[in-house]
Amino acid sequence: MSGMNIKKLRDRLYEIIFEADTRTGKIFDVILLIIIFISVLLVVLESVPGIRKNHHDFLVISEWIITGIFTAEYILRILIVKKPAKYIFSFYGIIDFLAVIPSYVGLMVVTYQSLIIIRIFRFLRVFRILKLTRYTVAGRSLVRALWASREKISVFIFFVIILVIIIGTLMYLVEGEENGFKSIPLSIYWAIVTLTTVGYGDISPATPIGQLLASFVMIIGYAIIAVPTGIVTAEMIKPSTPANTQVCHNCLYDNHDDDALYCKKCGTRL
Amino acid sequence: MSGMNIKKLRDRLYEIIFEADTRTGKIFDVILLIIIFISVLLVVLESVPGIRKNHHDFLVISEWIITGIFTAEYILRILIVKKPAKYIFSFYGIIDFLAVIPSYVGLMVVTYQSLIIIRIFRFLRVFRILKLTRYTVAGRSLVRALWASREKISVFIFFVIILVIIIGTLMYLVEGEENGFKSIPLSIYWAIVTLTTVGYGDISPATPIGQLLASFVMIIGYAIIAVPTGIVTAEMIKPSTPANTQVCHNCLYDNHDDDALYCKKCGTRL
Amino acid sequence: MSGMNIKKLRDRLYEIIFEADTRTGKIFDVILLIIIFISVLLVVLESVPGIRKNHHDFLVISEWIITGIFTAEYILRILIVKKPAKYIFSFYGIIDFLAVIPSYVGLMVVTYQSLIIIRIFRFLRVFRILKLTRYTVAGRSLVRALWASREKISVFIFFVIILVIIIGTLMYLVEGEENGFKSIPLSIYWAIVTLTTVGYGDISPATPIGQLLASFVMIIGYAIIAVPTGIVTAEMIKPSTPANTQVCHNCLYDNHDDDALYCKKCGTRL
Amino acid sequence: MSGMNIKKLRDRLYEIIFEADTRTGKIFDVILLIIIFISVLLVVLESVPGIRKNHHDFLVISEWIITGIFTAEYILRILIVKKPAKYIFSFYGIIDFLAVIPSYVGLMVVTYQSLIIIRIFRFLRVFRILKLTRYTVAGRSLVRALWASREKISVFIFFVIILVIIIGTLMYLVEGEENGFKSIPLSIYWAIVTLTTVGYGDISPATPIGQLLASFVMIIGYAIIAVPTGIVTAEMIKPSTPANTQVCHNCLYDNHDDDALYCKKCGTRL
Repeated sequence: MSGMNIKKLRDRLYEIIFEADTRTGKIFDVILLIIIFISVLLVVLESVPGIRKNHHDFLVISEWIITGIFTAEYILRILIVKKPAKYIFSFYGIIDFLAVIPSYVGLMVVTYQSLIIIRIFRFLRVFRILKLTRYTVAGRSLVRALWASREKISVFIFFVIILVIIIGTLMYLVEGEENGFKSIPLSIYWAIVTLTTVGYGDISPATPIGQLLASFVMIIGYAIIAVPTGIVTAEMIKPSTPANTQVCHNCLYDNHDDDALYCKKCGTRL
Repeated sequence: MSGMNIKKLRDRLYEIIFEADTRTGKIFDVILLIIIFISVLLVVLESVPGIRKNHHDFLVISEWIITGIFTAEYILRILIVKKPAKYIFSFYGIIDFLAVIPSYVGLMVVTYQSLIIIRIFRFLRVFRILKLTRYTVAGRSLVRALWASREKISVFIFFVIILVIIIGTLMYLVEGEENGFKSIPLSIYWAIVTLTTVGYGDISPATPIGQLLASFVMIIGYAIIAVPTGIVTAEMIKPSTPANTQVCHNCLYDNHDDDALYCKKCGTRL
Repeated sequence: MSGMNIKKLRDRLYEIIFEADTRTGKIFDVILLIIIFISVLLVVLESVPGIRKNHHDFLVISEWIITGIFTAEYILRILIVKKPAKYIFSFYGIIDFLAVIPSYVGLMVVTYQSLIIIRIFRFLRVFRILKLTRYTVAGRSLVRALWASREKISVFIFFVIILVIIIGTLMYLVEGEENGFKSIPLSIYWAIVTLTTVGYGDISPATPIGQLLASFVMIIGYAIIAVPTGIVTAEMIKPSTPANTQVCHNCLYDNHDDDALYCKKCGTRL
Repeated sequence: MSGMNIKKLRDRLYEIIFEADTRTGKIFDVILLIIIFISVLLVVLESVPGIRKNHHDFLVISEWIITGIFTAEYILRILIVKKPAKYIFSFYGIIDFLAVIPSYVGLMVVTYQSLIIIRIFRFLRVFRILKLTRYTVAGRSLVRALWASREKISVFIFFVIILVIIIGTLMYLVEGEENGFKSIPLSIYWAIVTLTTVGYGDISPATPIGQLLASFVMIIGYAIIAVPTGIVTAEMIKPSTPANTQVCHNCLYDNHDDDALYCKKCGTRL
């Protein structure tokens, strides 16, 4: 009877922690999401010199409360899951572990430099949020459209990389090291800054020929931005599901609408 | 008889002031639009030091004429509307009130600082213009397309926010405080400036690794701009009206395909 | 006989100069296009201090040759056209006149300042090129798509203008005159620079709240660039002409392809 | 028998080196691709002053190994191909030659300046990579969409060029040489930087009228970026393959609609 209750409780907790279909499961996920956001916010704010100095105690205490919650959650997940080893070595299992460990390691580490390195691991908690977005329908449809166009976008990015290498080399030869184009890698960096229309202005052409070449690059960049847009839009417009699989018994016409009751070609009842 | 006339006048004024279907109603709206634009223009011009000094009297007089018109309009609206309380506490009722009150409050306030704060409320008059755009067909169709894609755009912006947090943290670690990336919030600000291809150049990477990372960010930004475009375009392409006007004689179903020979609801020959 | 020949010559010249359907008419237009381009190039090059000094004679002589050609062409047009007055006061008639007159006026004008003002009129020759683009099929289809979406794009630009006024005023209040946001018009200029993702960096937010607000502006700008793209794309995708107007005698099906010889619904010869 | 073997070997090598359909042919292409990438990477890295000084010997040796491989490949191609002359003077034949020759010429050349000029020829190896992208299906579909929209994009770029000439001239007149707009070509360069939303900030308007004009340019640039996007998207959405594989038994016409019951060319029942 007691074993039965423990099994029941375990099943219930499994539903809450690992699934997102039930109401309590959803509430659990949302609360977790908020805690992750607060945790990320703390890391972000701690990096501001003024806040680090003036609110040191508040940051340390919040840090340990959040670490405590994540530790409890991590242990609970291991206890509840049917195959603990599989969870521990799964992608999100490793992230859950990495989200907890830095605070404990931080106790032993002294230098500020090392603490910053640790911070980046703690930051992986953000990927937990990405897991949650999987649940929304809109997110899934976006991911599907991007996934379907991955090949074309790769070819496009490959083409852009070759283009910026060529442009970068040309600009290095045209402008030269005295105008800020100190090496081909730096010129390629400039070419990317220009082609993507970011345009910092930390490096900009000074000779007339360089400015003419840069003008071509900008107009090309302005025109080829149409390519990824075209790819993704074409993918999004595609109907996501086949209309349906009904076939008319009489004339075998098979492209019926979802709401069709009779075949639109011969009038037979479907 | 006199009560009848007053009722008639009230109904007529109601039509003019609150509705935009009749010709006089439209003229009223357009005149109001022009006054709001002049009022906004005055606030904008007053902020220019040279104009504030040289045209002080003109600005004050214009200000009071406009405040007078808005006050008269506000009182008229309250008198005419059937349920004054409902109007007063509605969104546009509050805006109408806030558009009027700053000038009167300004009489009692002395410091220039406070006047600036008041100015921002006066500026809300602009939202009255937004109300008018609702009337145009084109505006409505744009709003409909954006509204239909609100979910996907939210997911996209959510994803962009997570991305800039990750990129900002990485750049803070890579570039460090000596290259202008003084804190993670500032690095996130840089990441947004870069990903959206704005590129002020107030902060830009100085180390080779930072520039390499920035190059990735720019190419990603260049590629993912396709996503919101794809979402909105896909929404706008969706047919807004039924394809044809055929109606089934038998069941009166009216959403037939162009090439349908039989009604797909009841099988009657079209 | 002689009068007959003059009429014939006049008709022939009319065809060449005013129309673009015949081979000689096209050659005339292309030669004119090249001369206009050279003339524009001369104006552009003359503005470079070095070129103005070193190639002064070459520029003056070329200038007068081109003015001579344009003058001859202008007189010829007046002589040949049936209703000279109508041509002279038409849009392109006025441009043709303004393209010629500056050089003559320049003889009497002494100061360099005035010459620059004249130059801008001479530059209107470029619009003659725009007239020629009308001829290409591709150009016409682009203009048609833009024209069809003029209403939606106007609403969009109207919305963007209101948005930048609101953002500019907010930034003026947040950043203040000490951070470069010296007046609301200048702040609006900054808002446009940021929202359109141009980002010069001549003015950029310095306070944390200003940078947060700027981040919102940038993400909004990044998202709403989808709107004009969606409008134009939706317009371009629309089939430009109805398939054709053939109707089957037998079954009255009317959506036949251009290359259809038989009705695809009942097999009757069209 | 031996001649037979040599012919067989030659055919086999031809398959590997010139074709990409067989497995060994693909492996050959991929290895070549990697060597080209390494070769490009060496040119890029050599331009960095620090690397050029510290890793001089490594760069020289790698350079000669790669030149050796390319030389061997070039000779092999000439030996194997049926018409050597045709290959040698083909586009890729010339590139293969230019990819090899600079290293040998470099032995005789002394000045560093000349070496940089040579380097740009060596860089043409990159075009060999472009040849390979032809093989992927995704690349071909992108190229097809861009090729189909070449006319409209040309008209668009032509229109943009006229626009930036007009804007550049106006800004030269408005801002003048004292605000950085030193000549019309430089002002046109500024107009391109602004219209394409790159926005370096090396030149930016300083007068109120200049900033107003720049605001218009930015909003126009923001709106017309929709045009190339619309063109390419419209092209990409077009169905690339015939809808079905039905072939008429009578006239062998094979481009029937999905819902066709009779051949639209000869009226035979499908």
